[in-house]
Amino acid sequence: MTYEAVVRVTLKGGVLDPEAKTIQRSLNRLGFGVENLRTADEYVVEIDAVDENEAREQAEEMCERLLANPTIHDYTVEVRET
Amino acid sequence: MTYEAVVRVTLKGGVLDPEAKTIQRSLNRLGFGVENLRTADEYVVEIDAVDENEAREQAEEMCERLLANPTIHDYTVEVRET
Repeated sequence: MTYEAVVRVTLKGGVLDPEAKTIQRSLNRLGFGVENLRTADEYVVEIDAVDENEAREQAEEMCERLLANPTIHDYTVEVRET
Repeated sequence: MTYEAVVRVTLKGGVLDPEAKTIQRSLNRLGFGVENLRTADEYVVEIDAVDENEAREQAEEMCERLLANPTIHDYTVEVRET
């Protein structure tokens, strides 16, 4: 069965986010009163699995091995049927 | 009042996503049977606004002027109180 795993990768608290700082400065220069900005990367992965649990396990292993760096990233996984 | 606008920027259908292709190939090489993978960028923006509508309008204008390229991107905006 095919599932969609929505993986959301964010920087851990306290880890500098230069991309966010740059975007925030640009928005402020454009006149927007942005007080804080955080970024996140999202991956929607189509997985073939026996059930939802197996799809979740596969997605979490993908995070551990490639999509997220455990030193600086947190991640969440949501699984849905397609 | 401070609101959080969650902006999600995705590539329009039919627009090539080389980042996604590269990640998918890497996952396949690691032995994962990934059939399709899409990426999205997410921005969580803290906005000072009179009400939710004004916060939404500000966030949509940020998309139009900086966060999304209307030629290749679609975007969604969700607003919540902090």
